[in-house]
Amino acid sequence: MSSLLEQEIYSQPQVITTLLEQETQHISEIVAQLPPFDYIVIAARGSSDHAATYAKYAWSTLGGYPIALAAPSLHTLYKHPPRLHNALVVGISQSGQSPDIVSVLEEAKRQGRPTIAITNDANSPLATIADHVVELHAGLERAVAATKTYTAQLAVMMLFAAALSGDQQRFEEIKQIPEAMTRTLERSKQLAPLAERYRYMEHCVVVGRGYNYSTSFELGLKLKELTYVMAISYSSADFRHGPIATIDSGTPTILIMPRGAAYQDMIELAKDLQKLEAELLIISDSEQALELAQTPMPIAAALPEWLSPITAILPGQVLALHLTLAKRLNPDVPRGLQKVTRTL
Amino acid sequence: MSSLLEQEIYSQPQVITTLLEQETQHISEIVAQLPPFDYIVIAARGSSDHAATYAKYAWSTLGGYPIALAAPSLHTLYKHPPRLHNALVVGISQSGQSPDIVSVLEEAKRQGRPTIAITNDANSPLATIADHVVELHAGLERAVAATKTYTAQLAVMMLFAAALSGDQQRFEEIKQIPEAMTRTLERSKQLAPLAERYRYMEHCVVVGRGYNYSTSFELGLKLKELTYVMAISYSSADFRHGPIATIDSGTPTILIMPRGAAYQDMIELAKDLQKLEAELLIISDSEQALELAQTPMPIAAALPEWLSPITAILPGQVLALHLTLAKRLNPDVPRGLQKVTRTL
Repeated sequence: MSSLLEQEIYSQPQVITTLLEQETQHISEIVAQLPPFDYIVIAARGSSDHAATYAKYAWSTLGGYPIALAAPSLHTLYKHPPRLHNALVVGISQSGQSPDIVSVLEEAKRQGRPTIAITNDANSPLATIADHVVELHAGLERAVAATKTYTAQLAVMMLFAAALSGDQQRFEEIKQIPEAMTRTLERSKQLAPLAERYRYMEHCVVVGRGYNYSTSFELGLKLKELTYVMAISYSSADFRHGPIATIDSGTPTILIMPRGAAYQDMIELAKDLQKLEAELLIISDSEQALELAQTPMPIAAALPEWLSPITAILPGQVLALHLTLAKRLNPDVPRGLQKVTRTL
Repeated sequence: MSSLLEQEIYSQPQVITTLLEQETQHISEIVAQLPPFDYIVIAARGSSDHAATYAKYAWSTLGGYPIALAAPSLHTLYKHPPRLHNALVVGISQSGQSPDIVSVLEEAKRQGRPTIAITNDANSPLATIADHVVELHAGLERAVAATKTYTAQLAVMMLFAAALSGDQQRFEEIKQIPEAMTRTLERSKQLAPLAERYRYMEHCVVVGRGYNYSTSFELGLKLKELTYVMAISYSSADFRHGPIATIDSGTPTILIMPRGAAYQDMIELAKDLQKLEAELLIISDSEQALELAQTPMPIAAALPEWLSPITAILPGQVLALHLTLAKRLNPDVPRGLQKVTRTL
């Protein structure tokens, strides 16, 4: 029988289909009801924080809002929460349980600011405290590593970006997502035998930029949680500010580079890395990019760049799954982890 | 003859003394002249971004301001800069040359928002465009890896935190810094022989929290740039959300844990890591913490926690220097790097 993780990975197109049916209208209504605000604070941890990182780009480019990612320890450890005058405050948590994320929304409420909770549990503490709740409709996630709840969170962030843009065309583009996910997951099955090659990989680098900066962090986390590989995530810009010195002949380097505004910069990086003899694994919808890779990881159907993180993560999830199996590790219960992490 | 890097590391107390003399009054005057603002956007890359991460905590706890770290690619790649209504915009760059950081300040100026440049070159493009310029007074930094300009940037962020707090006592606390740095650097000389042990370390983990989240990133970058070790940096909270699964018997783990609000959480993490048989290197001013380490890296003089990052980085810089020498690498010119990185 296949693992829970595998089942959850392949359930994602259906999860997103359900989510879009249930929440598209609802999110538009929430945005219409919000009082005026100048900027947005998002509080999240783990995979949810990667969805927040995506929003830092998408809500800015489409909605024009500056995004501040909250430092929850200001609320919990230091007891000096910032003044949130003119802010909208959003909390993202699959479980809705994390006390530090809840405390950020509590403080926003205390200061009379509007709050939105994005969670898979409408009865959770996070949902209970927020003015508006968006459910992920992902069903119970049973594998410890988040997959379907991560892409569901991305889809929610995309719906908010569309609503904040006031451009109906953005909602039309979102409708292409489930089909693009289905095709990319189908094509990713070819990665199963290719994962063998990385059985003894001890560390690797993951690079994305702009919208897919988030994808580099999420894929890095999947590799760490599931395969125990030390995966280090960067934006291509930060990578050139020093860490590129770590690249040597054979260093496994995963580049996330769907076509779009960040693509040319990533192509140049790929060529620099080839000169350093790095081992390249490339996630892209461009044949030109895939041809530069030792291990091509195709995105089977192109989406507009602003939506690309929701397909770009899929070949990475599938690679992480098969590398876990190649290492004879348990994909459903990584060592030392629990599903709900209660950080203060 | 000792390396430029070593000379620059040991010059830091003098650099900070000069900086405090030259800029304490100036920074108070800048803050007094600022128009009203609700939140602060900081644009920076590399080590400067770690100084920005420090400010995310210190300017919030002492000044009450939410901090958004800018995503420069919104300006350069995507051409959709956010609306900066009610924001103060700060750019940090040692060289003042990076086009992406300059573009964030240009946009702020276009939108009529106040801007501050923090740089080591008062004639740089970044300095030229800003309303207010704070110089680092660090002298030319000749080693590629930033050390004295990083702690000078931290000192500037600390002076701004004090000025934003309106509390004169904070300036008194800052005066303790040079002496605490001198004593810590002196004591760090004992790390030279201890670095040998890590000659064949291929990767390591660096964990800090709160104010010292920044230190974990800066030390990770020094290790990557100078020793080519894959160093992964985390906050202790994020670390528990998955990456702790990568820790195995012997995994080198550097914990940055001076006394203060984040200390108890870090002690618990250290004890959890001991159970996993991780190799612990601990940077602390607490004997209780240092006793948990295979390699203790003492901070020789306690500062208030909010100032601790400026001493906590020093044993890390010295360890990175000696590990570079143990590997017979060139500490002044890491492979593949240039002093000024011009990212778009």
